[in-house]
Amino acid sequence: MTATQTAASRQIDNDNELMDTNLRSRAERVIPGGMYGHLNAKALPPGYPQFFERAQGCRVWDVNGREYIDFMCSWGPVIAGHKHPGIEEAARRQASLGDCMNGPTGRLVELAERLVGMLPHADWAMFQKNGTDATTTALTIARAGTGKRKILLAKGAYHGAAPWCSPSVAGVTAEDRAHLIYFAFNDVASLEQAARQAGDDLAAILVSAFRHDLGVPQELPDPAFARKARELCDARGAALVLDEVRAGMRLSLSGSWEGLGVRPDLAAWSKAIANGYALAAVTGNDRYRRAAQQIYITGSFWMGGVAMAAALATLDVLERSNAVEHFENMGLRLRLGLQRQADKYGLPLKQTGPVQLPSVMFEQDADFAKGSLFAAEALKQGVYLHHRHNMFLSLAHSERDIDLALQVTDHAFSKVAAL
Amino acid sequence: MTATQTAASRQIDNDNELMDTNLRSRAERVIPGGMYGHLNAKALPPGYPQFFERAQGCRVWDVNGREYIDFMCSWGPVIAGHKHPGIEEAARRQASLGDCMNGPTGRLVELAERLVGMLPHADWAMFQKNGTDATTTALTIARAGTGKRKILLAKGAYHGAAPWCSPSVAGVTAEDRAHLIYFAFNDVASLEQAARQAGDDLAAILVSAFRHDLGVPQELPDPAFARKARELCDARGAALVLDEVRAGMRLSLSGSWEGLGVRPDLAAWSKAIANGYALAAVTGNDRYRRAAQQIYITGSFWMGGVAMAAALATLDVLERSNAVEHFENMGLRLRLGLQRQADKYGLPLKQTGPVQLPSVMFEQDADFAKGSLFAAEALKQGVYLHHRHNMFLSLAHSERDIDLALQVTDHAFSKVAAL
Repeated sequence: MTATQTAASRQIDNDNELMDTNLRSRAERVIPGGMYGHLNAKALPPGYPQFFERAQGCRVWDVNGREYIDFMCSWGPVIAGHKHPGIEEAARRQASLGDCMNGPTGRLVELAERLVGMLPHADWAMFQKNGTDATTTALTIARAGTGKRKILLAKGAYHGAAPWCSPSVAGVTAEDRAHLIYFAFNDVASLEQAARQAGDDLAAILVSAFRHDLGVPQELPDPAFARKARELCDARGAALVLDEVRAGMRLSLSGSWEGLGVRPDLAAWSKAIANGYALAAVTGNDRYRRAAQQIYITGSFWMGGVAMAAALATLDVLERSNAVEHFENMGLRLRLGLQRQADKYGLPLKQTGPVQLPSVMFEQDADFAKGSLFAAEALKQGVYLHHRHNMFLSLAHSERDIDLALQVTDHAFSKVAAL
Repeated sequence: MTATQTAASRQIDNDNELMDTNLRSRAERVIPGGMYGHLNAKALPPGYPQFFERAQGCRVWDVNGREYIDFMCSWGPVIAGHKHPGIEEAARRQASLGDCMNGPTGRLVELAERLVGMLPHADWAMFQKNGTDATTTALTIARAGTGKRKILLAKGAYHGAAPWCSPSVAGVTAEDRAHLIYFAFNDVASLEQAARQAGDDLAAILVSAFRHDLGVPQELPDPAFARKARELCDARGAALVLDEVRAGMRLSLSGSWEGLGVRPDLAAWSKAIANGYALAAVTGNDRYRRAAQQIYITGSFWMGGVAMAAALATLDVLERSNAVEHFENMGLRLRLGLQRQADKYGLPLKQTGPVQLPSVMFEQDADFAKGSLFAAEALKQGVYLHHRHNMFLSLAHSERDIDLALQVTDHAFSKVAAL
């Protein structure tokens, strides 16, 4: 419930209060553990809803009828706000023609042209459905193109949920990860050491646009680290693969490392490129065009026209709206507001990484007791935050939404201060 | 163009004739090879369109404005016909609420309950996006549940396009397939031999609902073979994993092997379960519930409510319409009609596998010269067939559509006879 919620709507909440509980107990019977993956509410502080009813702009409503100002944006995909009229209209128009057919629609070509036009690193694009499809495809292309096998990647980084990269090793064999060598993000020496370890078998360096590991301070890439990754790839004939799944289109519309002057050979995209419609992409340069042609990848729904039409409209909206500037402004407003409040309550805060993907943690909070209380208190007042994962902003977040949220966080900080 | 096409619409075709060509040449620049995966028209006989404009029922229109009676159903997904009103309405209703949010909608629970209610083998369900997600997830669960590593699977079977199973080995490492052991479909001795080879490390037998390999006669499972697979898994504590991605919901609404009296531990579903909306599922029994909880799988769009609402409506429609009986009737009508025509022209035909997924090849046609000519001639007259892959039927295929198609195939056979 938001600050503006009325007594009448509070009454409705009470009547519906059991919906989420009921769905959870039904889910326990027919879904292992009741829920799985990153949207599992069991990983959140007490009080978080598991099931959602509807969404509009930067607001979501759970099945108990509670409204939240949302700072997760569906964990990234919703970048222009839920039900953005222009994007929905483009999707509807395509749906009225056809979606999943015996071949692609013209949207495939238009979208590939669009990405190639936007991203200086890219000469071509290929589309999939999951972020994991995109990272896996990029590495397969890198291996096909180089004839090498070893992949360097940062320890603790999330690149998807296939056996080669899943955070759990249940059901994973040693061979699934036989050719992975780990380095520490932003640590040039460890990157060089990993490259030495790969010997003459280095296929790729896979690296996230910034360090967005769970539960630790976020880190923007050190330009020297980014340049070293590029240099190593050039010297060794390996592919620099940028994982843009999380950061993509929020830091820059030209590629997240473009400002550093470092261009990847291959980049993996998903989440925000179609405002919540299921789509992923790999973009690449001409050096890897032939390799991309040699591998075999496909999926039953990959050529669906609706998600591609939504992506074209999303990219239009992002460009027309100076989206990155908006995310920066809203992110800065939130960060500064939170900092002022934390200072007032004498609570040392760790706000790290790019402001567009807010990450808010407390100092001396190894067990996340403070973070959990903070998030749970904000949730009670209608602000949906995450206590140990980066958050996301959308075009639908206005100054007024940020300010409403800050009214709520002030109260949440007061509860943490009283711990 | 169909048999009913008018001179006026033929004129429109001529004006648009270059659309497909234009899109192909634009695609060559921005997509490696111009197209990839199973929808690549380069694998089809000359004259097949690459790009599609719209679809309705069992008809598709290419970007040149040509209309076809379609026997591929988007390679499986479209099972109730394109733009089925009830399914579209369910999807629209969910879209008007919300699709991709911070958690699932109630549709997740309803759909899991629905599958568990329909499929006697299943105690639970989990959802993904690609068929490959479902097969990979099922094997990961099998390995987690058994603590073993070896997977037995049929030589030449298609189970997806990840490095462990892709038909191409470009970019694939030996380790990606280190624990796979191959048998011949329907060959009990080779299955037993593969199981012996796995020693005490057998995690699963993965098997397609029927043999639907590309370019060879299709085979329904021999009941003795299916029972042996079940026996071996029981004796060795391994999981029987049924790949229902291709066949699912066309042979039976209770699971494709239910009629054989053989129940899998785990089954992988995708394609037809949501009539073209991107969705996949793994269903499993209680023996693998805990393992399914231990693995970590997820995807940015997996909990989208729209595809699940479409799936619920699709399953309703299939049940209400006696869909399997309809597919059988239409499939038999097509098969018998083609057989009569082939006999008339003295052309020995191989029609194999279940009638619901028609497979039409010619005897003595190793290079598919006859099949290619047959398909190309049918295409010219507005019937979209495949010359070496199984085809698919939908609820939208009526007796009249089959009969219209048979008018065209008669002419196509005459061309093959004249070879």
